[in-house]
Amino acid sequence: MLPRNASGPVDPMYIPEHFRENDPAAIAEILSAAPLAMLVANTQGGLVANHLPLLVDKTGELVGHVALSNDVHRLIPDGADVLAVFRGVDGYVTPNSYPSKAETHRSVPTWNYEAVHVHGTIRFLHDERDKRAAVGLLTQLHERALNGGAAWRMADAPHDYMAEMLDRIVAFRISVVRTLAKAKLSQNRSPEDRQGVIANLQARGEAGLAERMARPKRE
Amino acid sequence: MLPRNASGPVDPMYIPEHFRENDPAAIAEILSAAPLAMLVANTQGGLVANHLPLLVDKTGELVGHVALSNDVHRLIPDGADVLAVFRGVDGYVTPNSYPSKAETHRSVPTWNYEAVHVHGTIRFLHDERDKRAAVGLLTQLHERALNGGAAWRMADAPHDYMAEMLDRIVAFRISVVRTLAKAKLSQNRSPEDRQGVIANLQARGEAGLAERMARPKRE
Repeated sequence: MLPRNASGPVDPMYIPEHFRENDPAAIAEILSAAPLAMLVANTQGGLVANHLPLLVDKTGELVGHVALSNDVHRLIPDGADVLAVFRGVDGYVTPNSYPSKAETHRSVPTWNYEAVHVHGTIRFLHDERDKRAAVGLLTQLHERALNGGAAWRMADAPHDYMAEMLDRIVAFRISVVRTLAKAKLSQNRSPEDRQGVIANLQARGEAGLAERMARPKRE
Repeated sequence: MLPRNASGPVDPMYIPEHFRENDPAAIAEILSAAPLAMLVANTQGGLVANHLPLLVDKTGELVGHVALSNDVHRLIPDGADVLAVFRGVDGYVTPNSYPSKAETHRSVPTWNYEAVHVHGTIRFLHDERDKRAAVGLLTQLHERALNGGAAWRMADAPHDYMAEMLDRIVAFRISVVRTLAKAKLSQNRSPEDRQGVIANLQARGEAGLAERMARPKRE
C-alpha cells in the first residue's frame, strides 16, 4: 500500500480539495485497474517517458522492469527522482448532461478522470535474482487475475529461454517519496447534475467512467 | 497534423522498429481517440504533470488551457520544454493466448498499447481573445462529435458567466519539436499468434484493444 497523499512546497499536480483522493484503498484500486504506468524522468537529454506495468510490492515500493535495450536505465542515474503516473478511466463531460443547465445555463464543458502520481527515487537492478523476482511478481499478479488455475508460470517456459529473456531486461524499484491522487468525478456538482452525467456517459457507452462515478464514496 | 516521427540523439521513449508508428493519419487517430493528454515538465521544484484535453490546431500546434489556480503556468516558464503524452487503449497479453505457445512454450507475458509523445516548447496565453479561441476550439471539437446539431455552444451561457470562466483560466500553445509514436500491437508475433491475442482480448471484453489490433495497417 502506498503512503498517503502528502502536500509539499510545490504542487506537482493541480488538485482542488474536492477532487483530492486520500483514501489508500481507493488509490490502490486505481493502480490495480490501470497498472500500465507512465514512468517519467528528467535527464540531461530532456524528458524521457515509457509505459510500463508497475505494481506495489509488500514493502510499499513500486516494482517493474524495462528492456535492456531501453536507454532509460542508462539515462536515469540510480537515486534520481522519477514520476510514475497511473491513470484510470476518463471522459468528456458535456454541459448538456446537467439538469441544472436548462435552468441557469451556467455551466461549461469539462473532463472527468482519475489519476495517481507517485513521486520517488529509482534504482535499477541487474542481478538475475532481482530480475526474476520482479518478473515473477508481475506474472503472478496479472496471470492469476486473468487465468486463475490455468495461469501461465515462468516454469512453463524452457529454462534456457527464460534465462535469455531475463538477460534482456533490467528490473527497477522506486522508493516512494510522495503520492498524489486525484479523482475528478463531478464532486463539485449537485447530486442531480452528477446523476445526469452518469446517465449521459451510460448512454454514450462510457460504462467504466459511469461506474466509477456511481460508486459510493467510502468515508 | 503533427510533424512526422523524428529521431534524435537521445530516445525519450523506447521504440523498437516494429512498434514505431510513422503514419501521420494513425498518429492523428490516437490523439483523436485519447484527447486527455498528460502534460509534463521539469521545474525547479521537480517534475510536474497535469491531465488536460489537448488538440492540434490548423497551424500544427497543440492547444489547451489550465485553471488560473493551477500553479503549472507559474512553475513552467514560457519557452520551456514540455512533453504531452496521449495514450490509447492498452491491455495485458497472456502467453496462453498464443497458439505457438502450446508448441514451443517460448513466450512471456507482455503489455500492448499505443502512445504518442509530443515534445515541444510551451507558451502561456493570458489574453482574453486567446483564451476564448482555445476554449472555442476544444468545445467545437468535442461538442460537435458528441451532440451534433444539439452541441452546447459558448453563446448558450450568460455573457457575465463566460467572462468569469475565462478570467479563471490560462490558455497555452505548444510548438511541436518532435513527435514519437508507438503502436505496440504484437507486430513481432506471427499472424496466428496475433489472431490468438485478438480472440483472447475479445473474450475478456477488451474490445477497444482487440479492434486496434485487428485493424489493417495502412502502407
